[in-house]
Amino acid sequence: MSSSVLVVGTVAFDTVRTPFGAEEEVLGGSATYFSMAASFFTQVRLVAPVGEDFRDSDAKPLRDRGVDLSGLMRIPGRTFRWEGEYGYDLNTAKTLRTELGVLATFDPRLTDAMRGAEFVFLANVDPEIQTQVLEQVTRPRFVACDTMNFWIEGKPEALRRTLGKVDALLINDAEARELAGEPNLVRAAAAIRRMGPATVVVKRGEYGAVMFSESGVFGVPAYPLESVLDPTGAGDSFAGGFMGHLARDGRLSPESFRQAVVLGSVMASLNVEDFSLKRLARTTDEEIRKRYRDFRDLTGFAEIA
Amino acid sequence: MSSSVLVVGTVAFDTVRTPFGAEEEVLGGSATYFSMAASFFTQVRLVAPVGEDFRDSDAKPLRDRGVDLSGLMRIPGRTFRWEGEYGYDLNTAKTLRTELGVLATFDPRLTDAMRGAEFVFLANVDPEIQTQVLEQVTRPRFVACDTMNFWIEGKPEALRRTLGKVDALLINDAEARELAGEPNLVRAAAAIRRMGPATVVVKRGEYGAVMFSESGVFGVPAYPLESVLDPTGAGDSFAGGFMGHLARDGRLSPESFRQAVVLGSVMASLNVEDFSLKRLARTTDEEIRKRYRDFRDLTGFAEIA
Repeated sequence: MSSSVLVVGTVAFDTVRTPFGAEEEVLGGSATYFSMAASFFTQVRLVAPVGEDFRDSDAKPLRDRGVDLSGLMRIPGRTFRWEGEYGYDLNTAKTLRTELGVLATFDPRLTDAMRGAEFVFLANVDPEIQTQVLEQVTRPRFVACDTMNFWIEGKPEALRRTLGKVDALLINDAEARELAGEPNLVRAAAAIRRMGPATVVVKRGEYGAVMFSESGVFGVPAYPLESVLDPTGAGDSFAGGFMGHLARDGRLSPESFRQAVVLGSVMASLNVEDFSLKRLARTTDEEIRKRYRDFRDLTGFAEIA
Repeated sequence: MSSSVLVVGTVAFDTVRTPFGAEEEVLGGSATYFSMAASFFTQVRLVAPVGEDFRDSDAKPLRDRGVDLSGLMRIPGRTFRWEGEYGYDLNTAKTLRTELGVLATFDPRLTDAMRGAEFVFLANVDPEIQTQVLEQVTRPRFVACDTMNFWIEGKPEALRRTLGKVDALLINDAEARELAGEPNLVRAAAAIRRMGPATVVVKRGEYGAVMFSESGVFGVPAYPLESVLDPTGAGDSFAGGFMGHLARDGRLSPESFRQAVVLGSVMASLNVEDFSLKRLARTTDEEIRKRYRDFRDLTGFAEIA
């Protein structure tokens, strides 16, 4: 009895350079990476704007994964564009250029089917858009969101309103500290939990992830990869694995949250092994199960006498 | 049938400032932190030079922990001094001043009892001193060492000779990459293993630790602490827990290596909870067992269907 997941976020054309190659004007965006990753677990319904320059064929990777694209709204203007660069330290992207395009005027309208969504992910967009979407969903069972420094600094009140209505926040390490105004991560997570989300998942790139919730703290290292080609979309792939598992599993138990963090890590670790969506597009269910087992091998240790 | 551990390193007077307080001219040094931590697991024999300014009472914390101080050599000159500072990002120390003192002329001579040591830790000192010590040990069963950027850059050949003779290297993240000349940690660890040590343990501060060996990769997050007062000695406390467990356990099995990494993390996490040696001085065996269980709670997760 798997529930579907509704995601609102961006669909973009990305131009990315890493020390290992470059891609120009390829499909990207937070809702795209999220949907690709979550599609391995359950039905995904995507809500995002694209411009008149977006062709049907551009959405092929999402269509191939069975993502419901009825919420992909083509509106006047150009599709959102992001251009970024990574150095040998692949942990942080340097944004070279963003072109908001249709994002600037995006006014999300959900269909009735979408309003009935039980699992909702508000990817990293303007917190006012996040709230607009959430107000249209009639009785969500579990809502998570992401955000970034741009909104933490630029729209703090709107972000607080979003945070007051979500069950979980998935956020980068540095941004968690910034949002809480607190350098210690344990205290930062506690402060964020007081803002609303009962669960805070801190994404730490190549260092893994830590989840803070009422059932305590759970930490998992990142999967040690010999070859990382393009970190773009790692956080959204993480969110896709995390939400996808929760929706498929349905229990929302402490155990399923821990599995969700690991499956988020699994999807992120797969995603960065190739440029753009290439790796997720060729991923199989068996590879996901295999890497999940690898995570258990990576982290398991015995009691001491 | 616990084996003893021999450690060669520094005994120092530290002056440390963190955002949470300051300590002046307190007992520190790599061999000191190592010995304090390892003393909870087995008999520790310390080899290090101190100057004429070092009083018997200065060694009280070590003596109280039952550390064998017959290798603490008082020689002409002043005791090694280190002065450092940490910002709110407690991950990296800024060294304000070092005074080598007796370290500059240290010529380690082991007694017969010490030469028979089975477990040896060469803490972060001049790799020529590390080799000198190692040449005096008759048939060690397991040897590990630490090092730092100063020796990687300043004495690369001597360091290579040390690495060619050890079973394990415990090293910081950034220094592992520097030693290997390789930004990817998995490839860096593989390159270092080709230099000699079959086991490479990479210490990542608040992000935990990763071990690379012939039985694969093992990763553990750091224990999430609400209050870190002074990170000084965390790496050496880690090494003390790691080596102490291996010596006590005696198996040198893949399972005991994993437990050793966790017990290293346990000792490091305790150490940073107070200034200088204060926290280790008041630690109990039960606290160590408790935190080890906490690490299992922190990292455990179930299989998926």
